[in-house]
Parts: sequence; C-alpha cells; structure tokens
Amino acid sequence: MGMETKGPAVGPAVRVVLAPDSFKESMTAAQATEAMAAGVLAADPGATCVRIPMSDGGEGFAEAIGTALGAERVPVAVRDARGRAAQATLMRSGDLAVIDVASAVGLAMVEPTGRDVMHSDSRGVGDLVRAALDGGARRLIIGLGGSATNDGGAGMLVALGAVLTDADGRELPPTPEGLRRLARIDLSGLDPRLARLQVQAACDVTNPLLGELGASAVFGPQKGASEVLVRELDAILSGFVRLSPEPVRSLAAAPGAGAAGGLGWALMGYLGALTRPGVELLAETVDLPAAVAGASLVLTGEGSVDAQTLSGKTVAGVAGICAGAGVPCIVFAGRLGPGSEVLLGRGVTALLPILPEPADLPVALREGPRNLHRATTAAMRIFLAGRASGSSA
Amino acid sequence: MGMETKGPAVGPAVRVVLAPDSFKESMTAAQATEAMAAGVLAADPGATCVRIPMSDGGEGFAEAIGTALGAERVPVAVRDARGRAAQATLMRSGDLAVIDVASAVGLAMVEPTGRDVMHSDSRGVGDLVRAALDGGARRLIIGLGGSATNDGGAGMLVALGAVLTDADGRELPPTPEGLRRLARIDLSGLDPRLARLQVQAACDVTNPLLGELGASAVFGPQKGASEVLVRELDAILSGFVRLSPEPVRSLAAAPGAGAAGGLGWALMGYLGALTRPGVELLAETVDLPAAVAGASLVLTGEGSVDAQTLSGKTVAGVAGICAGAGVPCIVFAGRLGPGSEVLLGRGVTALLPILPEPADLPVALREGPRNLHRATTAAMRIFLAGRASGSSA
Repeated sequence: MGMETKGPAVGPAVRVVLAPDSFKESMTAAQATEAMAAGVLAADPGATCVRIPMSDGGEGFAEAIGTALGAERVPVAVRDARGRAAQATLMRSGDLAVIDVASAVGLAMVEPTGRDVMHSDSRGVGDLVRAALDGGARRLIIGLGGSATNDGGAGMLVALGAVLTDADGRELPPTPEGLRRLARIDLSGLDPRLARLQVQAACDVTNPLLGELGASAVFGPQKGASEVLVRELDAILSGFVRLSPEPVRSLAAAPGAGAAGGLGWALMGYLGALTRPGVELLAETVDLPAAVAGASLVLTGEGSVDAQTLSGKTVAGVAGICAGAGVPCIVFAGRLGPGSEVLLGRGVTALLPILPEPADLPVALREGPRNLHRATTAAMRIFLAGRASGSSA
Repeated sequence: MGMETKGPAVGPAVRVVLAPDSFKESMTAAQATEAMAAGVLAADPGATCVRIPMSDGGEGFAEAIGTALGAERVPVAVRDARGRAAQATLMRSGDLAVIDVASAVGLAMVEPTGRDVMHSDSRGVGDLVRAALDGGARRLIIGLGGSATNDGGAGMLVALGAVLTDADGRELPPTPEGLRRLARIDLSGLDPRLARLQVQAACDVTNPLLGELGASAVFGPQKGASEVLVRELDAILSGFVRLSPEPVRSLAAAPGAGAAGGLGWALMGYLGALTRPGVELLAETVDLPAAVAGASLVLTGEGSVDAQTLSGKTVAGVAGICAGAGVPCIVFAGRLGPGSEVLLGRGVTALLPILPEPADLPVALREGPRNLHRATTAAMRIFLAGRASGSSA
C-alpha cells in the first residue's frame, strides 16, 4: 500500500495520498511522488504521506506497481525487439509478477536507425513471462505500452514453446517477415504452466488487431512502417489470425487486441488474458481505493492534462476513486490544455499548473521537480488554511 | 470599503477580500479584481467578494483608491508634460481628492519621439491640485509614479501661482531649460487655499532630490536623458534648491524628495505633504485592515513577484495586514521569480503562478485575465475543501 513518512505530530495529522503519473520527459512517477512528498512536508511536517506512484499502462507501469507493492526487482536476460541480448526487470511480490513489454522489446531500446518492424519480434516478452513462471508466479500483470514490434505476439508464443512452420514444415522466425510464409501453428510445446497463470494486461487503447483502426495502421507508422509496409503488415497478421483456432481468431476484433503490435490479441487469445485500463488495474492491485478512503486529501497529476485526460488516463482514474470516496483531489500539471476544466465535474477539486513563470518547454521540463514541489507546498498550505478556517467556523 | 457581491447563501458564507495590484501590461488592478471575483464565484456562488483593487502608488493609484471608496470621477482639463492640452481625472469623495501625477504629466502620454525632459514640466499636476481646491478638497492624496518630468515640481508651483524669474525680473517657463536662469522664486501669488490643504503623497521610492541617487541620475535616463543631460539636470535642480527657503531647502535630502522628477520634494517642501508608501496610504484610506479582519481569506497578487516584492510593494503590504489579523493570504503572480518564497514567512499563505502551460511573454500577458480567473477558482476550491475537511475533523 505504499511507503509512509510521518513527521512530528502537530494537531490531528493530515493524511495525504500522492498518486501522480510520470510527467513525461521531466519526471518519472516515482520522482513526481517524491517531489510532492517534499512539498507536502514543507507545508506540514506533521502530515502523513502515502506514496502511490501511478501509470496508465505505458512505460513505467511495472515500476509504479512494483514500488507501490514494495516488490522485489528481478533482473531477467531477454532478447530485445531485434533479437539482441538485453536485460529487463520483473517485479515480484508473492505469487504476483509484473512486467512491462517496453522493458524487453521497447521502442526506446532500439536506436532510430536500427528500427525495422518487419524483422522485429516479441520473444523478449516471452522470456519475461517464462521468468515469471520460473519464479513461481500464478498471477501476471503486463504493461503493454511502448513496444517496437508488430508481430501479433508471435515472438512471445514462440519463446513460450509454440512452433511456427511453413508449408514444408520448416520452422519460421516469429517476425512479420517469417509470418509471411506461416502455414501451421503448433502449440503442443507451449509451457504447461501457462494454463494455471492468471494474466491481466494493462492497456489504454481499444484498437482491434486488424484493419484501418488496427495495430499496423495506427501504431505501425510510429514504429517506422511506411504506408506500403503498413498494408503488408496488416495482411501478414490477417494470415496469422486465419491460421489460429477459435476463439482466438474472433478475439482479433476485441478492443485492445491491437495493443503492442498485436501482443494484446495473443495475450487474450492464447494466454487467456483480460485487458483493463492500466490505471484501473494498478489502482486495484495496490488497493488505491482503501488508501483514498482513509485520506484527507489526494494529490495526482501528469505532464499534460486536457480534455483527452478523461479517456483512461491516470488523473481521471484517480479522480474517479476520489469522487466515490468524497475525498478532495488536486491535479497538478506541467501543461493545462484546452478542456481540462471538464475534470472539475469528475472528482477533481482543483487543477493547478506548476509553471512559475513564462518559459519555453525545455526549461519547463528541466525545472519540473522543483516546480511540482513548490506548487504542492502552495496547495497544501491553502488546504491547511481552509482546514483551520473550517474548524474555527 | 469596496463593492460587495453576494451569491445565494449555502452554509456559512465565505467572505473573500480581493486586493490585487495591476498585472503590468496584462490587467489593471480593477480588471484583476474582477477576474478574481469571477474565479471565486465560480468555485462558490455563495461567497461574499469584497473588491479592493490596490496600487503601490504607480499608475492606477487614484483609480484604485477611487474605486474602493466609490469616489466621483471628475474630468479635469490639464497640460501634459510638453504643455499640450490633455484631460486627466480627479477622484472625489467628500473632502478628499485623489490624483495621479501620471494622469496629467505621465511618461506614457508622450510618444517616445516627443520626449524632451529639458522642455517638460509639471504644470498639469498643478492644474489637478487647483481643480481639487476648486472642488472643495481639504485632503489630497497624490500618486507619484510614472511622470515624464524632471523639473523639481516647478511647473506645479507655477500653476498654483508661484512666479519664477531671471536676474532681470523676466518670467521663466518652469522647465529645466527655464530653471537654468532662475534667480528668484516669488511665492506671494501662491493659492492661499493650499495652507488649509492636507497633502499626502504615495511614493514607493526613497531617493533624495540631488546627487548620485537623485531624481536626475536615477530616473532621468528612463525619461530620455543622456549622461550629459543628467548632470545638467542635477545642476539645474541644485540651483532651484539653493534659491528655495528653509526648511524647503533641507528637504531636498529627504527620502522620496527625488520621486516624480522632484515633485516629491516640491510637495513636501512647498505644500507640506507627507510621503508614505502607496500601499500603506491606500490600505489606510480604504480601511483595508477592517475588511481583512472580517474576512475568511484574502487574495492579492501582481504581475511579477520576487524577493524585491518585500520592499513597499502591494503584495507585501497586504500580506502584512493579513499576518496581523491572522487571516490567510494567497498571492497570485504572472511570474514567481527567485526569492519569492521569502514572502511565506511574512503573512503569505501560498504563492500561486497563474500560467497554465509553457508560453512566451506576449501570450502570457494576453491570457492574463483568463489565467487569473482559473487560478483563483483552483485556490478557492482547495480552500473550501480544506474548510469542509476541518469542520468534519
């Protein structure tokens, strides 16, 4: 349930839950949480800070969940999207393992000139799942954001024991290039422990696997695919789907099937995973509702907040929990964009920008922790002044 | 005591005093006050807003004091710094008149190419003082900021009946150019009503009239004086001082004598004025301490807040009054500069920047009212959440 810091007691202690997402390119969620804690304690040394760094399922999801649970960090040797040796981290807490797709086959791990989605695959994700099984996991949570692959999860399945062959029975690499000649999917060698593994995938997109809104069309370009290549990739994944058994085949149309280059589909179809918005999954796993219910105040935030924030982002998820519990929720943002006021009707008490003066983006990003600290102190001091006013009214 | 707006009553009403200065180049103090009021009422339609726009004695001082007192606005035909016909405004409330030096001989009223401090004078200020006397004023408050003149107040004295002559008894214009040949100051024609006029000057500088820290050296350059001209102007004012009677002569060394191109000196010496920091004078005149004592919360602010804000600026003055009354005080700023945190030890509860996202200065200035409204709503909602938390604790 997060680490607690308690200062000297001065009157009835204020209990503050700190549950920010990362402020992209400025602070990780853990760093934002620390900046907030410092800001709260500067205003009230007697406050109790409950630290629950958040993530909506993108990069840093496993880190956030692992930190909140006080999980053990297990280094795992994996293959990156191009098949090169790399090291990823698995978070382990009891029979629960938490991993990030991005930590094994992340787009950020491949230099831009080395990106080649046609020859990339997700075996590294399978390496992580196997490591989770080896460590005794019975529950697995996977963050799906940030992959460099578009292989429909073929790599993961192969790493877990599936064999893909062409019409002549020759084994194929699980890259889109290899899948072109796919004729048969042999699941007989699939790790039997998977049958007893409960898998949940944190997913903040609702795209299906194929077609105009599918993985290749929507996320292919940011992985380096040209327009021509996008059509090829979509056709290749279509072939993979046609050769899959039911109900796997039908799940290609499910929301989230298109996440992480089709890993969403493979996880749902072949591993029986449930997909959930990352913020919901994280909130449930770390029991954020219980922490919120016992709090005087909740602080959250992320780099940019606007009308889009309502759709599955951390801030909206945290605010929803606060609304249910009747606990005030303050949102801090590096950028408060158009339409952000909509959140005021959805559990958000106040939206506070953290920028102290006119500045360009690089300066704003660099000064993020200091600005968040200062803004948190200001908000906390206003809240405490109100509290004093209320108790004397 | 300021206008009040009251929404429908919902529980015990929150009473909020709104006492911002102007946000330079973005909002007048009156506009900032309205933006704050809209922000407060958006958060709490039942709140009572007490509007007291502030000023530290610069431009907008008379406007601020007049608004707070509900004064009558009297148009007055005056001469500008170059002697051209202009129209200024005098604020009248009972036997009190309030005027701004800047509204008659303001630097902003003379186009940059037309600025010529050697041929500028302060007769327009005398025109305003005479209008105040004509209207029956027994008390006069003058805001000294923003003048285009450096005539030691000679123009004002001439407009009020003094006669300046050269060695041959020829009347001189009251410009620095004219004062070069000054041989005699004849005060016999000075308006006799001045003897019964109590004058206070709002002045946020402590410069003497002459020398390195004097009017010419410190403020001459921003009025267009070159280094050579600065020395000439200082010598000319020295001559004016030498020809003045005691105790006028000695008052050239008094703090504030150098304000408004020496008008500070002429007001103190020839009109018996007291100089006070503008924010103190305004606060006393509108009885800000009484308004603060009855408030749940005070909101103030100005365009830029930093370590210098401690020296006689509005925010520091308002915060001091709040500290004395034990009422929380929130400061809003377009720019929170280095050292602004010092204010947290001087009666300021919280410092809040109003900028919602990285932006350059022109955009920040243009969006000022909207940003202040939004920031005020956020602060108010946090305060109210604290109040609710306090009353249930």
